[in-house]
Amino acid sequence: MEPKKWTQLWLDYHKMYEGQKSWIIAVTGFDKENKVLRNALSEFEKGILAMTLETVTEEVSADALTFTISQNRTLPIEGYRIDGSHDGILLEAFDEKGVLYGVFAILRQIACGKRATEVEENAAPTNPLRMMNHWDNMDGSIERGYSGESFFYVNEEIVIDDRTRDYARFMASIGINGIVINNVNVKGAASYLITDRYFDKVKELSDIFEGYGIKLYMSLNFASPIELGGLDTCDPLDKDVISWWEDKIKEVYDRLPGFGGFLVKADSEGRPGPFTYGRTQADGANMLADVIKPYGGIIIWRCFVYNCTQDWRDTKTDRARAGYDYFKDLDGAYHDNVILQIKNGPMDFQIREPVSPLLGGLMHTNQMLEVQVAQEYTGHQIDLCYLIPMYKEVLDFHTHCNRGKDTVADVVSGRTMGNKLGGMAAVINTGNDENWTGNDLAAANLYGFGRLSFNTRLTSEEIAKEWIAQTFNLPEKESDILCSMLLRSREIYEKYTSPLGIGWMVTPMGHYGPSVDGYEYSRWGTYHRADHLGIGVDRTDKGTGYAQQYYEENAKMYNDPNTCPEELLLFFHHIPYTWKLKTGKTLMQHIYDSHFEGEEEARGLAADWDKLKEVIPAESFDRVKKRFDLQLDNAREWRDQVNSYFYRKSMIPDEKGRTIY
Amino acid sequence: MEPKKWTQLWLDYHKMYEGQKSWIIAVTGFDKENKVLRNALSEFEKGILAMTLETVTEEVSADALTFTISQNRTLPIEGYRIDGSHDGILLEAFDEKGVLYGVFAILRQIACGKRATEVEENAAPTNPLRMMNHWDNMDGSIERGYSGESFFYVNEEIVIDDRTRDYARFMASIGINGIVINNVNVKGAASYLITDRYFDKVKELSDIFEGYGIKLYMSLNFASPIELGGLDTCDPLDKDVISWWEDKIKEVYDRLPGFGGFLVKADSEGRPGPFTYGRTQADGANMLADVIKPYGGIIIWRCFVYNCTQDWRDTKTDRARAGYDYFKDLDGAYHDNVILQIKNGPMDFQIREPVSPLLGGLMHTNQMLEVQVAQEYTGHQIDLCYLIPMYKEVLDFHTHCNRGKDTVADVVSGRTMGNKLGGMAAVINTGNDENWTGNDLAAANLYGFGRLSFNTRLTSEEIAKEWIAQTFNLPEKESDILCSMLLRSREIYEKYTSPLGIGWMVTPMGHYGPSVDGYEYSRWGTYHRADHLGIGVDRTDKGTGYAQQYYEENAKMYNDPNTCPEELLLFFHHIPYTWKLKTGKTLMQHIYDSHFEGEEEARGLAADWDKLKEVIPAESFDRVKKRFDLQLDNAREWRDQVNSYFYRKSMIPDEKGRTIY
Repeated sequence: MEPKKWTQLWLDYHKMYEGQKSWIIAVTGFDKENKVLRNALSEFEKGILAMTLETVTEEVSADALTFTISQNRTLPIEGYRIDGSHDGILLEAFDEKGVLYGVFAILRQIACGKRATEVEENAAPTNPLRMMNHWDNMDGSIERGYSGESFFYVNEEIVIDDRTRDYARFMASIGINGIVINNVNVKGAASYLITDRYFDKVKELSDIFEGYGIKLYMSLNFASPIELGGLDTCDPLDKDVISWWEDKIKEVYDRLPGFGGFLVKADSEGRPGPFTYGRTQADGANMLADVIKPYGGIIIWRCFVYNCTQDWRDTKTDRARAGYDYFKDLDGAYHDNVILQIKNGPMDFQIREPVSPLLGGLMHTNQMLEVQVAQEYTGHQIDLCYLIPMYKEVLDFHTHCNRGKDTVADVVSGRTMGNKLGGMAAVINTGNDENWTGNDLAAANLYGFGRLSFNTRLTSEEIAKEWIAQTFNLPEKESDILCSMLLRSREIYEKYTSPLGIGWMVTPMGHYGPSVDGYEYSRWGTYHRADHLGIGVDRTDKGTGYAQQYYEENAKMYNDPNTCPEELLLFFHHIPYTWKLKTGKTLMQHIYDSHFEGEEEARGLAADWDKLKEVIPAESFDRVKKRFDLQLDNAREWRDQVNSYFYRKSMIPDEKGRTIY
Repeated sequence: MEPKKWTQLWLDYHKMYEGQKSWIIAVTGFDKENKVLRNALSEFEKGILAMTLETVTEEVSADALTFTISQNRTLPIEGYRIDGSHDGILLEAFDEKGVLYGVFAILRQIACGKRATEVEENAAPTNPLRMMNHWDNMDGSIERGYSGESFFYVNEEIVIDDRTRDYARFMASIGINGIVINNVNVKGAASYLITDRYFDKVKELSDIFEGYGIKLYMSLNFASPIELGGLDTCDPLDKDVISWWEDKIKEVYDRLPGFGGFLVKADSEGRPGPFTYGRTQADGANMLADVIKPYGGIIIWRCFVYNCTQDWRDTKTDRARAGYDYFKDLDGAYHDNVILQIKNGPMDFQIREPVSPLLGGLMHTNQMLEVQVAQEYTGHQIDLCYLIPMYKEVLDFHTHCNRGKDTVADVVSGRTMGNKLGGMAAVINTGNDENWTGNDLAAANLYGFGRLSFNTRLTSEEIAKEWIAQTFNLPEKESDILCSMLLRSREIYEKYTSPLGIGWMVTPMGHYGPSVDGYEYSRWGTYHRADHLGIGVDRTDKGTGYAQQYYEENAKMYNDPNTCPEELLLFFHHIPYTWKLKTGKTLMQHIYDSHFEGEEEARGLAADWDKLKEVIPAESFDRVKKRFDLQLDNAREWRDQVNSYFYRKSMIPDEKGRTIY
């Protein structure tokens, strides 16, 4: 088998300017043998050489530049300060990870157009935890993966090669400090990751990560005491179960000293959990947390718990309510090394959802925001959909939990409650495709998530520009075209898919392409309730009461269709097609217009891409062009199916007389 | 691995009466070493002993009964005459197969209540060919199989054991004389069935079949010259291709002297075929037929050719037209050892379709009727659906091709045109489940198809009673209950699923359970075109013109919604929900009523089954009871989804005010 090639993503250092000077590196306060520091220096050397043609030597010469690295314990943890001058660059850092992030910051600034002597930044991560969640299975498949197979696993074996190291570099370069290496649905071989079968290989992987300041985490099978231990229960309050976990976790830390902890999906979509034994989610999480605490480990407990065998006839049960209903009452009961990981919205990664009311609804519990960089419902990395604006909306959302520090960014970073654990996690969009993310442009989401988790104040545009500069090093005009494509793309995808926050309407199972009624009569709790007269789910105080899970300001806003943000109108209200929107259009006309516009604007994206043919490497250009061809088919299919569905149901004609089938 | 058990289906000879006489067998005119004859005699011995406790000896004694078998060349091929008297039974037969069928007839009559001395029948098969088509794949899976895995194949090997022999017995007992052993979609290992890799095992299987009067056939990969022969074409007019087939078919007959011929699915749903090379279907079929003719083989060419990448927006293309459009013009062009195998309806085995206009539309071509005993669209052998009444309707349908001999039964039997080749084929419903057919009651379809293909004049009720008697030997009251269940079941299934011949509305891919719009925006050519005002496909002369493919009497009848049989109204017409049916109900009310009734009547079936608890063997009773539980869930789901769909779309309330969601 020929060795697989892979791209260097945003670390494909382009030549930025001629230099021909030499650099001398001076390190003070750090151990030069430290792995992280060594990796940082090696990256500096590689990047500076490629981008400026300068050399790094140990010879002092008259015009040599100095890269001075020194420890500064007054900076925040993982923080750094960089300052370029005619003499070279000063990099101060709290710790070796700060050095690593500082080096990547220097290289980023050069890639974005600054000279080495001009770089300048004072930074520290906003979020304590910045994590990637791999939904990789050990047979090599990836749940909701759209970029090939896993690069961690082949045939139930862990694979470690140069690609693994590059992957760790990429993650470090955007500030990621934790990686969960296996799917939250832990089955089969993956249950054995915490056994001798895999310890050696996991240790090897963990060592590579460690060199890049990344802790290795694993998803855990809550039923391990049964499946691995031969017990007949996994009741978290059972003494034998606790004792089994004590032994097991001791063993884990004996073999993997730098291990971060566990991510747990329990009582969710068929996974086992504490509910089976009449215990609370807190009982489950706290038991594991207590056992892992002596080793400095943490338990990240997912809040994606809902009834996935709902009867579609039942209009009282509301899946959107489930997270809050299950977790809010236990606020404060979770031990301090437990973090609840909460999806951005109450449903499941739709193109538009309100922010989960659990975020900030919990006021005495560590919280982590979970987003999905993998484009499950947002176009399978075929359709262009730059997701950073969505994440920004979530982070900037005022929960009203607390005057002054009430945004989601405040809550998960720890600013609101002064807690130490929290942050952001993303379901990653990578695979073993040559370009890592299927669509080359989907790497902007991977990059962007990391950057945003490191610094939630960055704008979507800043991130897009950074990514474009580092990846393609385009002339300004072309950079602007690509930046605009990214920034328009989410709204375009939203326009041609499901309207005004209602979500779904997607082909069951696969989740690509339209099927307006695909989930309407299903057990998944995901309904649009469209009839001849209107559409939407009444989640007000007269409906399911979901809106009342928010703090009062938001509850009031959402409860009234006149104040509810229109992009979420159908999420919160059942609205007649004749309802007048603020634009003056009826709801029905809005649906028609937005679908026609969305499809047209998708064509605009593809046309813009064609303008970049001369400046994008041919392989990359062609790959993306093929994706746009597919996106246009998809957009047309969505447009026509959604419009036809509503026309046939409502019989309200399009005011503009366009073709509806 | 423990050996699998399996039931004896309708050959589970029950004790019928006390006898205590002995039988002497006297054979004249036949070779007693003939395999078929030997199998016939062994079956007689087994059956007569089990049912009457009589013994078969060679000792002549005063009160011994004689089973006299003699050849009578004045009877039709495969024909027999049985005549019981106080001396015993006389069985005359044209050939050994006639003897075999006669023996099974004797045992059937005894099982149905006659004494051995009273049996009487004069019979010969209506159809020259009576075939089973297995859609078994060589990996053991069965396409559209609902009874476990294949009993022919495990892991790409052919398995031959006692079960194989029992299977052949069952088939012979109902008159089957041809079996196609592999899926019409021939891929992978199955392409190699005509190579050394499998010849020995196929020969072994063929020998077993031969002993029961059954010829072995195979489905063929039209692209074999490419895949096996390494040619770069499979153009049927290419010399190298023809020459390759000549060599290959010689090889096949060298190794399998009794081989029957090939079934071919070409140019259909992605399968290769003559269209690829700009050739006609006749070019493809005739080439193979000419090559196989010297060996007495035949080519059965399926007419299931249509565009399966239709754009749902396209209302002019009509899948229903495709078979006739592709095959009618070439009527008369097919060589005399070609048979066109035509599905009963123009679409694909829906619970209600009109009869294919190709049947009898072709007047100079051998035709075979294909039905699907496997319950793909008719309940997956979970829901009870006795299909014989449907087959009877098809056979009795007057095509008007010819005064006097114009039914489908006339056409396929050869009576209409005086041709020698034709008959009936069924996609079989068996698998390696203990009871062969998943649902024990689905065996009635398997049995019934065979009996009906042997004698198309049998009624659905006669067949049901025969099957019940032989399988369960019930008291009259209970037999009547079960018989009534079978006879009601098809209409019940039809009532709770898609209305008035429109079909589909089924979950895509799996084809079990409702999804009203599941195929509405798909590429499969299967649409209901429902909107706020009405539903149905206009296939009249003002629509797709499909109705005009029939002879004039039928074309006229179907073309007018007032004369169109109402059970097919939506197949032929787009009808407003307010349309008055002959019952006085509106179409909408009919949909509501039939769905409520269907679900209720399904509950009636389940309740009837419970009445049989005492008289049905426990294992069998329980298996079927579990299926009824699932059927009731399914019926309820269909009822509510279909009713809700139409209510939400039309907003016409149910006159009876029942709950619609």
